[in-house]
Order: sequence, then C-alpha cells, then structure tokens
Amino acid sequence: MPHIKVDEKLPGIRSLMAFRPETAEPLGVLAEILLRSSEGLSPADRELIATHVSHLNDCFYCDHSHGAIVTCYLDGDPGLVNAVRENYITAPISDKIKSLLQIAGKVQKSGKSVLPEDIENARKNGATDMDIHDTVLIAAAFCLFNRYVDGLASVAPPDLSTYPLRAQQIVDHGYGTHIFSKPQPV
Amino acid sequence: MPHIKVDEKLPGIRSLMAFRPETAEPLGVLAEILLRSSEGLSPADRELIATHVSHLNDCFYCDHSHGAIVTCYLDGDPGLVNAVRENYITAPISDKIKSLLQIAGKVQKSGKSVLPEDIENARKNGATDMDIHDTVLIAAAFCLFNRYVDGLASVAPPDLSTYPLRAQQIVDHGYGTHIFSKPQPV
Repeated sequence: MPHIKVDEKLPGIRSLMAFRPETAEPLGVLAEILLRSSEGLSPADRELIATHVSHLNDCFYCDHSHGAIVTCYLDGDPGLVNAVRENYITAPISDKIKSLLQIAGKVQKSGKSVLPEDIENARKNGATDMDIHDTVLIAAAFCLFNRYVDGLASVAPPDLSTYPLRAQQIVDHGYGTHIFSKPQPV
Repeated sequence: MPHIKVDEKLPGIRSLMAFRPETAEPLGVLAEILLRSSEGLSPADRELIATHVSHLNDCFYCDHSHGAIVTCYLDGDPGLVNAVRENYITAPISDKIKSLLQIAGKVQKSGKSVLPEDIENARKNGATDMDIHDTVLIAAAFCLFNRYVDGLASVAPPDLSTYPLRAQQIVDHGYGTHIFSKPQPV
C-alpha cells in the first residue's frame, strides 16, 4: 500500500506524478531529454543504462518498465536485457556500452566511486564527454526515480505481461507529462 | 579535476549545467519547486532536508551550498545547520522536522528502507501527505544532485567563506537556470 493517498489505479511513478503535477513536469522533461535523445548514445543504450541502475537498486517497477522499453527498441527480444541483468560483462553489447555501464554502476553506489580509470576506459572504447555526462546523469536520475517510486511505496503491477504495452506507448509517444496523469493499462 | 571538459571557473553543479543546458533546465525547475515552495514545509525546512541528505552522501559542494542557504534563511546563524550535521535527534528542531529527516535519511540509503512506522511517526508529529511526498522527493533529488556533482568530479570551492554570497543570491532570486551559466563568485 502506498505511504500517501494516491490514485492506486495508476502504477508506480505515475501515481506520484498525478499526486504532484508541479514536480511531474520537470521530471517528465528530464526523462524525455535523457532517455530519448539520439545524440551519441541511442535511446536503447540510454534505457539500458536506466534498467541496469534500476536493477542494482532493486526497483521492480523501474527495472521492468525500462527493461520492457529496451526490449521494445530491440523488436521484442528480451535476450539482451536479461543478459545485462545477469552479468553485463558477458552480455552481447559493445565494449563502449560495457564501460559506460561500469560507470553507471559506480554512480549507483556513490558519485565518488567513479574513478579516473573508469573514465579513461570509457574514452578508450570511444565514449565522448557527452556520452560520459549523459551516462552519469541517467544513473543519478534513476537513483532519484527508484527512491521516489519505492520510498513512497507506490504500487508496481506484478504481472510482467502488462509492461510491454506501456513500453510501446513510451517508444511511440515519449515521456510527455500528459501520459502520467491518465489511467492506462500499465 | 573534472572528468569531462567543463568551464572550471564555474563551481560544482553549475559547471555541469553550463555543459548541458538542455538538462539544466528541468533540474533548475525541479529545484525551484522542491526547495522554494512554501506549501506546508518552509523553504528553510526544505533546504535543511537537502543539506542533511547531501551531508549523508558526503557531497562537500551540496552540503555546504545548501547549508549556507539554510543559514541565510536563519539570518546568518549557522548553529542549527551544524547541530543537524552533528546529530539531528538532539538538534533544536521540531519533532515534525526530526521525523521528516528520519525519512530523508532512509531514502538516502534506499527507497525500500522507508517503513510504515516512519510514515506513522511523521503523521503523528503533524506531517501531511504533501510534506511526506516532498520530503521523499527532495531526498531522492539530492541522491541525484550529489551523484551528478561528484560522479563527474566537478570542482567545489574549498573556501567556505565564499558560499554565503551564493546562498544569498539563491534566497533572493531562486534557482532559475539563467544563474547556472554565468560565472559568479561561488
């Protein structure tokens, strides 16, 4: 049961965003820029970083919401997301993305955990300053989103079969805040 | 030295916001709403929660930036901020604020650490749903800001005497994103 009185027909963060539309607006804009930009990292890369951090933070709703979005970008194949959840080091992803997931995992622990050698490794694998910036900010943002969702005990739909429909809506229409306030299947 | 090429004349988060103005905009809007709203919690209460979480995350720049803002709201007396940094349980603050700092400290660890009894305790001390929501979101937001600032190794001015001037600017003019891109004393 959520810690505050929210519309329980809305799942996860969407119930919180409907409760406080003033803060929903900048959070939606931030998600839209960080996760749907194609500058350097692709939207699928960005969602993979979000999923990795949410998985490390054990946030069921965000892990499965964003994992479903990665899968949607990959034509419905969940193999890559599941491989990263198991062990990103051996997953079928580029060395550049592995080095950025390493940085994201450090940020999940604390900002100070990111060492110059982590950055050098990412650069050696082709990461630009913008890639590194966006990786750190996506990871930091999911340390916010995961804590927001679980810190207020919002309700995550337990049925994983409901997540792909919502994922397709995000892929098609983005994170506009209009989508947070209307009851939808997921 | 920062991990990416930013304007080192700008301290802390301001150098990062100048590097990526697109994400600076929603982050500035979020800070403005969460930290300067007077609905329920006062701006001083909100900044105290931000300082508490930044202190727990060992983020020198945010701890001292926001601590200086609390002090500014309290007519220049740093006693209360320092007492909370030492031990909020014995600090000269209301039981309501103590119970909200307890929730914020749980959020700093993880969202799931917040228990129903923490919420009940805050309600017993007069906290509303909006107070609880904003406390959780401020704490979660500073888990973002602290990781953003330290995860990219932005430069924090070591001289604490420079923070009050910047704090006064925030108190007078707010977190508008225009202030992030111009070189200023702090």
